[in-house]
Amino acid sequence: MTTTKSSFREWLVHCYPVIEDALEHSIQNTSLSCAPRVLREACSYALLSGGKRIRPALTLLACEACGGESKQALDAAVACEMIHAYSLVHDDLPCMDDDNLRRGKKTVHVAFGEAEAVLVGDALQATAFEILASQKDPDKAKKMLYHLARASGPSGMVGGQILDMEAEEKELSVEQVSAIHRAKTGALLEASLCLGAIAGNGNPEHWKEFGWCLGALFQATDDVLDATQSTEDLGKTAGKDAEAKKATLVSSCGLDGAHALVEQWAARAEAALESLSLTLHKDILLDLPRFLRDRCR
Amino acid sequence: MTTTKSSFREWLVHCYPVIEDALEHSIQNTSLSCAPRVLREACSYALLSGGKRIRPALTLLACEACGGESKQALDAAVACEMIHAYSLVHDDLPCMDDDNLRRGKKTVHVAFGEAEAVLVGDALQATAFEILASQKDPDKAKKMLYHLARASGPSGMVGGQILDMEAEEKELSVEQVSAIHRAKTGALLEASLCLGAIAGNGNPEHWKEFGWCLGALFQATDDVLDATQSTEDLGKTAGKDAEAKKATLVSSCGLDGAHALVEQWAARAEAALESLSLTLHKDILLDLPRFLRDRCR
Repeated sequence: MTTTKSSFREWLVHCYPVIEDALEHSIQNTSLSCAPRVLREACSYALLSGGKRIRPALTLLACEACGGESKQALDAAVACEMIHAYSLVHDDLPCMDDDNLRRGKKTVHVAFGEAEAVLVGDALQATAFEILASQKDPDKAKKMLYHLARASGPSGMVGGQILDMEAEEKELSVEQVSAIHRAKTGALLEASLCLGAIAGNGNPEHWKEFGWCLGALFQATDDVLDATQSTEDLGKTAGKDAEAKKATLVSSCGLDGAHALVEQWAARAEAALESLSLTLHKDILLDLPRFLRDRCR
Repeated sequence: MTTTKSSFREWLVHCYPVIEDALEHSIQNTSLSCAPRVLREACSYALLSGGKRIRPALTLLACEACGGESKQALDAAVACEMIHAYSLVHDDLPCMDDDNLRRGKKTVHVAFGEAEAVLVGDALQATAFEILASQKDPDKAKKMLYHLARASGPSGMVGGQILDMEAEEKELSVEQVSAIHRAKTGALLEASLCLGAIAGNGNPEHWKEFGWCLGALFQATDDVLDATQSTEDLGKTAGKDAEAKKATLVSSCGLDGAHALVEQWAARAEAALESLSLTLHKDILLDLPRFLRDRCR
């Protein structure tokens, strides 16, 4: 899948069919294939209802950038997207963000029921680990499993979600909001790159700083988008952060402040890239902060 | 920890302090140690609030029965108990079984909140996989991760929970109820034995039939207990199955029928043991069906 594309948007377009195909196959090639019908359907709905597929695209990108072939990273890419999909299903639950709309469609608990949505998340998490544990190379599998489990667990994504809930109706500093972002969003983006690096025989540790900056950038633009765009444009309910009195970068330093931080993190991400020894795709990686930043312009 | 105990009850007593110690350490030795305070406390509450520790005791037992030392299986034992603990937290949620009492104490969502309980389950699941992925031997780690992911996922425990919900207010055959039991309870009991076998260099496949029978036996006695014992004796709300119109063995073939099935499965479990080449602990393993069966007498 080596390519001469130079923008991340082109990379996404390039990867999209491969990733969609791998995600669809994951329903047939894992425990999901022999799951009770309603669970399989609800998991497919959660996993295959659109989404930009940024995380799996990052996994394939990091793999090729380390000199690997992206097909070596496809399982890892699917596992990262499954963890992401499960987190969205649980985040949307009535007891959490209580969201009825996701990517312009009914959320899983609205379409299938609340208990079913809890179980869909649980099943997708287990299946992500099953996929990684099904890989041939035990060393790589173990490393990937370790990175993904830590990124998605209590000091990563799940911990970030708790911090985010605790921060409601509180005034937080930019540093505190950034720490929440790092755990809630950054950890999984970082892991998506690290798993790709492992697949491509690179060193996952080298990718952490870049991954961290991308995570900060990503969540910051999300905060800005939630405050400035319409529900129709977003494909999910807009203005939820302010309504729920969530601590966001916009609430802690205003729209201009949030925009300035986005620029700072983009610069730091670019600097982090310079310290990586890349075999390929430097252009696409350099374009990534711009891609994320441009969402909120 | 080799012992001359001959009953499973003695084995449980013998293992209990070792398992409790390992569970307590798992809070400090994993991502839970750097989780947000409330999440760490809620996870500790879920994991350390009693419980017979049957699954981790099975893991240690199978390991020694295959000729290993039980300390080699401690990580696996903790991982199995974490998956069990997470499943209880999610099963108790208002949108699932809506239970306020577990082991005589408030359930996690009553003590910490509903969103927190969803996240506690999510965090414990991720941490179970983190623990297995932290082990030294990549081959064993990968095998254990595969078995545990499949047992806890959509065609195992989570699938069983969906089937159980779907079966409410329906009349099911004994075979249908048994299939639900196999997924909901049997898969994790089976995996607890298989992970122990892997740790002790045994063949996990050889343990599946015995594990399956134990699972069937275990859930059948649970059905009988729910129909016959008081809330005080159970330490959890009694009579919930009938109230929720759940499909149980008691509802599908009556109390006498359920008792008869328990006896049949006990005999089948004993037969399965005969086909295993055991290095140690045959007495304790032979006593296991009796131990489970005696709960409902």
